Amino acid sequence: MTTATTSPTPAAQLARFAAELQYSDIPESVLQKTEDLWVDWFGSVVAGHNARPVASITRFALGQGPAQGPAEVIGPEGRSSSPYLAAMANAAASHVAEQDDVHNGSVFHPAAVVFPPAVAVAQALGKSGKELLTACIAGYEVGIRVGEFLGRSHYKIFHTTGTAGTLAAAAAVGHLLGLNAQQMLHAFGSAGTQSAGLWEFLRTAADSKQLHTAHAAGAGLMAAYLANDGFTGAADIFCGAQGMAAGMSSDSDPARLVDGLGTRWATPETSFKWHASCRHTHPAADALLQVVRAHQLKVSDIAEVVTHVHQAAIDVLGPVVDPSTVHQSKFSMGTVLALAARFGFAGLNEFDNEFRAEDTMALRDKVRMVLDPEVDSAYPQRWIGKVTVTTTDGRVLEGRVDEPKGDPGNTLSREELTDKALRLGEFSRAVPAAQMQQSVQKLWQVREWTRVEKLLLAV
Amino acid sequence: MTTATTSPTPAAQLARFAAELQYSDIPESVLQKTEDLWVDWFGSVVAGHNARPVASITRFALGQGPAQGPAEVIGPEGRSSSPYLAAMANAAASHVAEQDDVHNGSVFHPAAVVFPPAVAVAQALGKSGKELLTACIAGYEVGIRVGEFLGRSHYKIFHTTGTAGTLAAAAAVGHLLGLNAQQMLHAFGSAGTQSAGLWEFLRTAADSKQLHTAHAAGAGLMAAYLANDGFTGAADIFCGAQGMAAGMSSDSDPARLVDGLGTRWATPETSFKWHASCRHTHPAADALLQVVRAHQLKVSDIAEVVTHVHQAAIDVLGPVVDPSTVHQSKFSMGTVLALAARFGFAGLNEFDNEFRAEDTMALRDKVRMVLDPEVDSAYPQRWIGKVTVTTTDGRVLEGRVDEPKGDPGNTLSREELTDKALRLGEFSRAVPAAQMQQSVQKLWQVREWTRVEKLLLAV
Repeated sequence: MTTATTSPTPAAQLARFAAELQYSDIPESVLQKTEDLWVDWFGSVVAGHNARPVASITRFALGQGPAQGPAEVIGPEGRSSSPYLAAMANAAASHVAEQDDVHNGSVFHPAAVVFPPAVAVAQALGKSGKELLTACIAGYEVGIRVGEFLGRSHYKIFHTTGTAGTLAAAAAVGHLLGLNAQQMLHAFGSAGTQSAGLWEFLRTAADSKQLHTAHAAGAGLMAAYLANDGFTGAADIFCGAQGMAAGMSSDSDPARLVDGLGTRWATPETSFKWHASCRHTHPAADALLQVVRAHQLKVSDIAEVVTHVHQAAIDVLGPVVDPSTVHQSKFSMGTVLALAARFGFAGLNEFDNEFRAEDTMALRDKVRMVLDPEVDSAYPQRWIGKVTVTTTDGRVLEGRVDEPKGDPGNTLSREELTDKALRLGEFSRAVPAAQMQQSVQKLWQVREWTRVEKLLLAV
Repeated sequence: MTTATTSPTPAAQLARFAAELQYSDIPESVLQKTEDLWVDWFGSVVAGHNARPVASITRFALGQGPAQGPAEVIGPEGRSSSPYLAAMANAAASHVAEQDDVHNGSVFHPAAVVFPPAVAVAQALGKSGKELLTACIAGYEVGIRVGEFLGRSHYKIFHTTGTAGTLAAAAAVGHLLGLNAQQMLHAFGSAGTQSAGLWEFLRTAADSKQLHTAHAAGAGLMAAYLANDGFTGAADIFCGAQGMAAGMSSDSDPARLVDGLGTRWATPETSFKWHASCRHTHPAADALLQVVRAHQLKVSDIAEVVTHVHQAAIDVLGPVVDPSTVHQSKFSMGTVLALAARFGFAGLNEFDNEFRAEDTMALRDKVRMVLDPEVDSAYPQRWIGKVTVTTTDGRVLEGRVDEPKGDPGNTLSREELTDKALRLGEFSRAVPAAQMQQSVQKLWQVREWTRVEKLLLAV
């Protein structure tokens, strides 16, 4: 129905961008940041590979898929399968430690749904490191814009990493497959019509978060493979009258789909996670740490902590009042702040060992959230942390951070990223330090790889 | 958090029903109708197995999954794979000929998303015919109630067969795996959080419908396998504040989830399709046929046909004004009525050979839809067909059917069902008549099978 004079829809523009992106178009700073995100992701996938829910998904993948194949199932067991099933297993593993990256404006965790399908397909097709990076940047740019497009109303009910994640995965895999613009648009249609992921699981600390990333990676990869085989999808899955926005958002903004395509790079806007918890807790945790350090408070000095937060923090974290699992405790504002105050950092080991310690729970119950108009209106572009701490001797102390640690303006160095990845490798208790160290060293060289081979090196 | 005195949620009641349903609980009339649905489904899966979009999905499934396995990929090629990937391929095939069954009240096509995963798992686990039937009835009862629960607002945007289909597939597979009530509830959580399928593809006649059934079958099967492995899901994926209804419906009704569980059998309420088109066209087609027969009209006698329809017919069929593919023409009210008037029946061959014939298009363009309050308020419980035909000599003739052919009150005999299945087998052009005939004969004996083996017999 489109005539030559009709200007292309945002969907068509975004598909063309994802299909036609060239390595040489990408600024050096964007490539460098993508390498940072790449190494950071690897720590998460290794740390998560043997978590219970991930092990279930991997067993399913290896039970239903080929028990050997060209794509690595990342872990010291040295397993492999087809790209589809390896991507599902690795995507599940990437998101469980709550240490993977996040893009603030879209409230979207790109690494978990972009790198696993891209690596699996790059390994199967023998693509180069540069081709892999280019495809992953296509995935980040698309997924972030889809998340921004779907808006805050969407995120109240839907786990954007699961929903926008199908598009991100389709873009990355579609780029590796060499889809043209029209085929990429079909892949978007097939990905978007499989888009899914509800927050309801948080209420009972269920395992769905890992299923969401596995699903997004698998569905997006499948959408791209099908498009490569002539399978068609909706022409405007985003803005059509029965498309994603119509079904799953009340404040969608089509302009965000194409915002600065090729000039504004969304990939380097992505933040690293420092604390091993839901990102919504990080601004307040850093603001509390500021107060604790400035006034050299001991935990026993703290009578109350009021965190001044955005509405989405209340929506996501509010239901979690008495966390019963490690994973659920990462969505408890009180637990995160208590661990930060006690140890200066809420890391994987702190959660595992201390989330139900008496001192943690006592401080946890002194923390509450209130909606703050300034913080809320800055969100999601900026994640401001504000706390008011009342001490047992009656002082009222204010803390504030404008960029929590890991945000682009307060980022991690390559040394900190390497350390974080090695710490995550240790956490999995199954990967020897030397093996992790050599693998991470090699990962930093991704740009030079003539073909993507196994990421976790044998030792 | 549930205490002993809290009454179970609708989700928990439905899960218990699905887990604990026994063959001996099921009335004979329900078993017989399920056998009818079973044979009727087989015709559709065979007819669809080599359609272009289905072939793409099957290539993907066999390329990414094991190239051989315990589950049949139905077709004369004699292929097989793991249950997961075979279920996806067969579910895609079941829905493409537009001849598979439909439950009116839920606007849900159960066969396409229940039989494929159930057969695949039953073959892999060596289950009996009675176990298969019982599991499929669990799938029908759950899927239909979830569709009814999600309501009309859901169906305006979402393809209920895709969305409710994940739950139906999970229930059937979960029953075969022997999940207990609690595990079944987890399976529901994992299925519902993957629930997806948007109508947007209709606008450009894209291939998503087959992807939706493949996705529902695969995601539901995966949810059940994961639950069997200890993987948890949301406790109330239906009614929770961030669950399916919150995200995807504005008129959900929790009471429908448990309406008459174990006393009202929803399975036998399912209708067979007579015409090979979208079910929304059938009432009007039958009403037009009534007028044509009563007044012995020739096609050239017809000046105008006004169909008096429900809103959902306008939502689904309205965008299709000049269908460019056979599949899209099955969603064109004008095309369906033109074929019915010309041939007395809008069957697969009529669509394939005549959907763009001049006589068809001429009559097609004389058909329009208007919203009818009586028809609309009876829908979806009853699908009333009303047409006003104006003849070229100025007569105004009214036609009306209260139950289109194939509805429970106007159902197909076992002879008609056998004939329909054989006709569908012929249509695929790849299955010899004798092979189809012997297979269908054996399918009628399903209740006696000690184990479910290949459905399409070798000849």
